[in-house]
This record gives sequence, structure tokens and C-alpha cells, in this order.
Amino acid sequence: MSTSSLHPHGVFSAALTPLDAELAPDHARFIAHCRYLLDEGCDGIALLGTTGEANSFSAAERAALLEAVVAGGIAPQRLLPGTGVAALTETIALTRHALSVGVDTVVMLPPFYYKGVSDDGIFASYSEVVQRIGDARLKVVLYHIPQMSAQPISHALIERLRKVYPATFVGIKDSSGDFANMTAMVDRFPGFAVLVGADPLLLPLLRKGGAGCITATSNLIARDLAYVYKHFRDSDDDAALKAAQARIVKARELVSRFAQMASLKAIVAERTGQAGWQRLRPPLESLPLAQVKELLADAAAFAAAAV
Amino acid sequence: MSTSSLHPHGVFSAALTPLDAELAPDHARFIAHCRYLLDEGCDGIALLGTTGEANSFSAAERAALLEAVVAGGIAPQRLLPGTGVAALTETIALTRHALSVGVDTVVMLPPFYYKGVSDDGIFASYSEVVQRIGDARLKVVLYHIPQMSAQPISHALIERLRKVYPATFVGIKDSSGDFANMTAMVDRFPGFAVLVGADPLLLPLLRKGGAGCITATSNLIARDLAYVYKHFRDSDDDAALKAAQARIVKARELVSRFAQMASLKAIVAERTGQAGWQRLRPPLESLPLAQVKELLADAAAFAAAAV
Repeated sequence: MSTSSLHPHGVFSAALTPLDAELAPDHARFIAHCRYLLDEGCDGIALLGTTGEANSFSAAERAALLEAVVAGGIAPQRLLPGTGVAALTETIALTRHALSVGVDTVVMLPPFYYKGVSDDGIFASYSEVVQRIGDARLKVVLYHIPQMSAQPISHALIERLRKVYPATFVGIKDSSGDFANMTAMVDRFPGFAVLVGADPLLLPLLRKGGAGCITATSNLIARDLAYVYKHFRDSDDDAALKAAQARIVKARELVSRFAQMASLKAIVAERTGQAGWQRLRPPLESLPLAQVKELLADAAAFAAAAV
Repeated sequence: MSTSSLHPHGVFSAALTPLDAELAPDHARFIAHCRYLLDEGCDGIALLGTTGEANSFSAAERAALLEAVVAGGIAPQRLLPGTGVAALTETIALTRHALSVGVDTVVMLPPFYYKGVSDDGIFASYSEVVQRIGDARLKVVLYHIPQMSAQPISHALIERLRKVYPATFVGIKDSSGDFANMTAMVDRFPGFAVLVGADPLLLPLLRKGGAGCITATSNLIARDLAYVYKHFRDSDDDAALKAAQARIVKARELVSRFAQMASLKAIVAERTGQAGWQRLRPPLESLPLAQVKELLADAAAFAAAAV
């Protein structure tokens, strides 16, 4: 099975969400950012995810942002909004809303408040969502990010969901960083789109049959990720592929030194000249000024080296 | 400082939420349950908490349940609804709504999706809530339940919140089970209401200057908790106090053998003759039939011994 026959496949940006002075999502800036990401080579935008601070927004704020993006001219087929929250009925409402604006594929966290929940309980939750929505268009990308959700998506659960709802559970975003887990899913579930959350793993995962990536660093180096996606079959000796992969590794290091999301926002603020881009909604915080200075110096050196 | 000068003080039930066949909160049954809990001696109802499955309900469902309870004749001064969710703006909306129906004291989880958040970030979150609501009536009970929220409430954070908002942050529910943490807060923060989440610790905490409890087992043995609250100054040799404490310890064991919330619901279903009480909303699950049988046999033995 080739990568491009999987759905979704390609490079998706776990897009940052710019905030206005009231710490509300800034629609105009976000639409501009989505355009930038697509222009840079992203195949689509995984908005309203962990990187997008979606779990700090109300359901109404999430719905309004998604509507604005579609109204702003971004094709809904290129959007993979996050719609999974702690409350079952809110997950259903957000998913239904996404379908109503023309989106057909969503990224869905498992319910994440209660801990130590069984696979039966998570299966029941996903099952209720699919059944209550009852819309054959719906396609769900599961979301494995145990370091945040504290709720891993087990292979047994994937098997069960695919068995009962084969047309619905089409893939998974794996943000665990555990490459063996990703390749095990590729091997065990033919036709299932495994998307990596850690940028440096895009290349090796594609070579193992993965579908692509949904990453935060794409806010910064979408072009390199897009290059790797197009050329992953090239030899490791290919200079351009080597250079792209090296920049991806380097960029990931750059934004991992301090808090990742705040770092990415600081770099976008610098690129766009819009200081407001630095805002995060509590409980997340902007970087202290000293860290911004250090980061931007490193980012400038990175950009200079990349020319 | 005496226990009764703290606010809130007494025995509060972390009330279970009965669900209808659609797994939505059953308002009529919930109001009846609240009346039962107050009749049994609870000083108030801490509805919409962890035990009440609140984080599995949408904001609209939470608001509707609270309104129904107040419309059903339960005095809002006796209610301590949970209003803290992952999204800042939703926490604000739920808290504002509680104030609008006459409630003045809420139990507020810290934002619980992002992990490894700093005290500065949690402070900023609580601070935004208080400032945006801007209502002097608001009193907040912090909620320390690291095993679920993965976000402990540190003493340094409490100190800071009390310093900046002395009239607002009036107490904490400590569900960690760590008695030393509770007594340390009692000692360090005079006038701050420390409420325990683990029933057997009510007696020792009251003797150290704690304010009371918010517990799940109160759905079952409110009378004993109320007895302990009224008589904690009695001698350890007092037969009635001894018996109440022994029943509390025993009841806690009873509902800790299998999943706690499902166990409590099964026992309430048996007491009321309403099988629907057994329902939980995914990702939580009802007990398997074999466990229900075992539990109810144990519960019957417990009730018989308690006469």
C-alpha cells in the first residue's frame, strides 16, 4: 500500500493560534497564518489541536474559529480540526459542527479527565460519538498523546474500532515519540494512516509506510517537511534531502530548549513583526524576555545557516 | 480559629449524577437525591464534581442541571458546584452562571489538559477568572486532586492567591489522601477552609482544625459523616463516635473494592429501586453484573451490621 492511498496523508501543520489582546483567537491573523502554511507546502492544517491551545478555548470559540477559516477561503477538505474534549456531548457537538462546515476528517482526543479508564470505556466513548452523529462522511484520526491526555490509544482499541467502524477510524496521530509504536501500527493495520507528531521521525516513518505528519515545528519549517514528504524515497546521500532533514532536526532542537509552543509563537512574532503573536492563554505562558532574546538569536543563526 | 468560622464548613456530598436512558443528567432524580442527602444530614451539596461526572458533561448540561436544582427548591447557599474546566473561558462562563443563580461558592479545578504547567501559569489562570468575573460575592474552593487533574495545587500558589485575592480563595478540597498535606495547609493558612476528600480522614482533620469534607461516600453514609462532624470533640472512647467512624471506614472499603463511582451508583440503584441509577457516561462504565452481585451482598451485610 502506498503512502498516498492512505487518508489523511501528507504534511499537516499543528497550527498555532494567534490571540488578540483579550486572549481570544485572532481570526484574521489565523487565516493569514493558514495561508502562509499552505503556501509553504503544507498539505493541510490540523487546527485546534494541542499546539493550537484548543483545550484552553470554549466550544463556542472553537466553532467560531473553524467557521472563520472556512469563510476565509481555506478549503475545508484541507482542514483536520481537533474535536475531542473531556465531555462526550461536547465532542459530539464539535464534530457535528465540523461536518456542517464541510470538514470530513477530524482529529479526536480520547476523553482526558478521568484517569485509569479501560479500553472498554474509551471504545464506548468513541462509539457513542460515531453512532450519535450517524454521518457516513465522518472520518476520525485518533490521537495518541499520553504525555498530555494520560490516556494511551492501545492497538487492541484501534483493532476494535476499525472492526466495528472500518470507514470511520482512518488513522492516528502518534505524538508519543515512540517510533516502535508507530511502525507496529503501520504493520498491524494495513490502510490505516499513521501520522507522526515528532518532525525528525517523518522521514523514517514514511519509509516504513507511514502516512505523514501533524507537527508543531511545521509552523516554522513546513518547506523542509514538504520536501521530505515528496522525496523520502530518494537516497540518503541526496544532498537536498539530507539538508532538509538536518534543518528539521535542528529546528526541533531550537524550539525544544524552552517551552515549545511559546518558542514557536515568539519566532512567528519575529517573522511577522506582530508582537501579539507571542500571547498564550493561561495556563500556558509567553517566554520571559531573556529567553526570547536567546531564542531569537539562535533562530537567526539557524536561518542564516539554512540559506 | 474554630471550624465553624471557616467557609465553607461541614459535610458536603460530592453528589453522584443520575443519568437517563440517553445518558443525560436526570434532573428530577438528581433533585430527589439532593433532598435525600440534605435529609441525611449533609450541610450542602458539592454537585458537578469528579464524582458527579461533570467533566463528561457539556457546559450547557452543567448549567441546566444547576438551574434545575435551584428551581427544584434547593437553596443555592447550600450548593458548591464544580466550575473549573480545561478551557479558561468556559470556567469563567460556568462560574458566572453559578453566581447568576444565587450560588456564591464554587469548587474550581485548575486547567487540566496541559501538563507540567508552572505555578505562574495556574496563578494566571485563576487570576483571569476572578478579574474577568469581577464579582465580590465570588468565593472559590481550590481543588487539589493530582491523581485526576495531574496539576497539584502547591502551598506557594495558595499563598499567592490568598495574598492577591484574600476574600475570594477561601478554601481547598484536598482529594490527594495525603493527611500531612492537609494539616500543613491548616497550619500555614489561618482562616482557610481545608476540606478532605477521603471520608476516614474527616475526624482527624477536624481535630487539627480542618473545615469538613467533600466526599463521594457521603452518597451512602452521610449520617455518619454528619455525626462525626458534630461530635469530633468527643472522646475517642465515645461509643457512638467510635461506631460512626468505624462505619465510615467500612463504607469506604466497601466502595473501593471495585470502581468507586460505579459501586456507589449500584448501591443507590438498589436503595431507590431505580435501576437507571447504575448508568455512567463513557468513558466511565457500570460494574459488570458479577461485581454488582458481590458488591450488593457486601453492602447488605454492611447495612445489617450497622443496625
